[in-house]
Amino acid sequence: MSARYLAITGGVGGAKLAVGLAKLLGPDALAFLVNTGDDFEHLGLQICPDIDTLTYSLAGLSHPDLGWGRRDETWGFMEALQQLGGEAWFRLGDRDLGLHVTRTQRLQAGASLTEVVREIATALGIRHAMLPMSDVPVRTVVHTPQGNLGFQHYFVRDQCRPEVTGFTFEGSASATLNPLARHWLEDPQLAGVILCPSNPFVSIDPVLAVPGLRPLLQRLQVPVVAISPIVAGLAIKGPTAKMMRELKMPLTASAVAEHYADILDGFILDAQDEALIGTVGRSDLSAIAAPSVMVTLADKVALARSTLDFIDQLSALRKW
Amino acid sequence: MSARYLAITGGVGGAKLAVGLAKLLGPDALAFLVNTGDDFEHLGLQICPDIDTLTYSLAGLSHPDLGWGRRDETWGFMEALQQLGGEAWFRLGDRDLGLHVTRTQRLQAGASLTEVVREIATALGIRHAMLPMSDVPVRTVVHTPQGNLGFQHYFVRDQCRPEVTGFTFEGSASATLNPLARHWLEDPQLAGVILCPSNPFVSIDPVLAVPGLRPLLQRLQVPVVAISPIVAGLAIKGPTAKMMRELKMPLTASAVAEHYADILDGFILDAQDEALIGTVGRSDLSAIAAPSVMVTLADKVALARSTLDFIDQLSALRKW
Repeated sequence: MSARYLAITGGVGGAKLAVGLAKLLGPDALAFLVNTGDDFEHLGLQICPDIDTLTYSLAGLSHPDLGWGRRDETWGFMEALQQLGGEAWFRLGDRDLGLHVTRTQRLQAGASLTEVVREIATALGIRHAMLPMSDVPVRTVVHTPQGNLGFQHYFVRDQCRPEVTGFTFEGSASATLNPLARHWLEDPQLAGVILCPSNPFVSIDPVLAVPGLRPLLQRLQVPVVAISPIVAGLAIKGPTAKMMRELKMPLTASAVAEHYADILDGFILDAQDEALIGTVGRSDLSAIAAPSVMVTLADKVALARSTLDFIDQLSALRKW
Repeated sequence: MSARYLAITGGVGGAKLAVGLAKLLGPDALAFLVNTGDDFEHLGLQICPDIDTLTYSLAGLSHPDLGWGRRDETWGFMEALQQLGGEAWFRLGDRDLGLHVTRTQRLQAGASLTEVVREIATALGIRHAMLPMSDVPVRTVVHTPQGNLGFQHYFVRDQCRPEVTGFTFEGSASATLNPLARHWLEDPQLAGVILCPSNPFVSIDPVLAVPGLRPLLQRLQVPVVAISPIVAGLAIKGPTAKMMRELKMPLTASAVAEHYADILDGFILDAQDEALIGTVGRSDLSAIAAPSVMVTLADKVALARSTLDFIDQLSALRKW
């Protein structure tokens, strides 16, 4: 039996590394635990943005530039919706709708989100397990001085403009960790856990907030490593840097490592931030620098390779 | 106050005459009472084929050839749905989906079908009232030697191939006639009721099966006229002729008049069937012949004009 890895991920940045990891590891050796905190119901449809971005990324169907949605998309539905006076702030492409309608119908018929994600993945030729963090709905709420906002209203409708003062993960307290994720984490073949370079606050934290996961990660006898989504003081994409500033955090990769302090064994900074390695917190936390800006498939595979090598080194160095 | 008319209609053929009538009569003078027996839930969406065909026809958005759906349609949704292994026998265009998703969402939010139809009509610039026969779901079931079929499964999935032995309108017994239709029928300005050239069995009969409508029509002091959907022994479009054959009815316009015998005062046959005028049943039923094959807008307006003139003649001739 080969070594097994669980990668915890949100959308965009995480999905890029996921593609790299999936090139190096087969479906028996790699599973994804995916954020569902940014899921929402819209126009009567169940939308799962992070799962969808991962789905389209792994299936080779993702839009090359947008960071969400499908390639070769058309927009007839949105045009008709606008003509009818419907809510058009969340863009749903015609092909993308095939997925949302299928998922909504299956959920209404009583299937679990885990089952539906697997069915859709299978239909699209994806062999790796994508595990929603929980089949119980958890909803990320963004706190702002003007009040609370559902995540997609903050992120898409309001374009991340409101100042952020904190987050709540509604439903989290009564959510149950996906039992298949627990199974991977308790597997004797588990070799490491990877926190992908997704937004710590709204992509990874909602996953970590599912009861039982954090203690499981703390108890693990294998390395937990994170890849910084902050490179040279900037977020590659999305509002991570803006959120850190508004939350009065230092705008550095080291602050991300500190954010994950209680569960982390290893941290990967971007090669541009190599000088910060010494500033990465605790004495029992190892850090390395590696190119982490992923544009091409080769970039994704290279960072995946660096991550797996780092996990190997940590395993060899330490007495777990 | 001008004379008012209520036109009872299904899809295709009825919608063509509806367009003609709407050119001659303003929204104060004309309302449509529409079949909902072929409505169904599909992929979690509420689909109302006859209402939609009428909607697109009146809005000038209908597909020029298909007899259903929108012009300038694209099919990305269907392609994605098929890729996901979904049910693809009922074709839903990308723009058409904007309507189905909007309606489904509004119905789920508690709006009545009548309200939703009005909202969508208003958004598309339609000024005439399109009244669903009832806000209570009624479902046309087609009886065949192999068992019962939901209407769309018979009509679209099985392409009308099964032999027809009869029909049931499920839910009809507990349906309530749209109160706005009752209002039109009881209006002192009512000048006539028109049964459009739709399929008698699956477009008009489901409407007539709504409790209370048939006695209302029988009691009316103004003419009720029907236009034959059978021309020279053939149905212009759809399975009317095939159904009549399977139901052992003579394949003539006169048989259609006979089918409506208890409510009809006037009957319009196509000009090609002028020789049949003498065969149209009862002595108290007047019949005329007029060109009824509608291809161009002028054809539609001409048949609408013939129909209104015929109603005028009947009103003048008889002591109501």
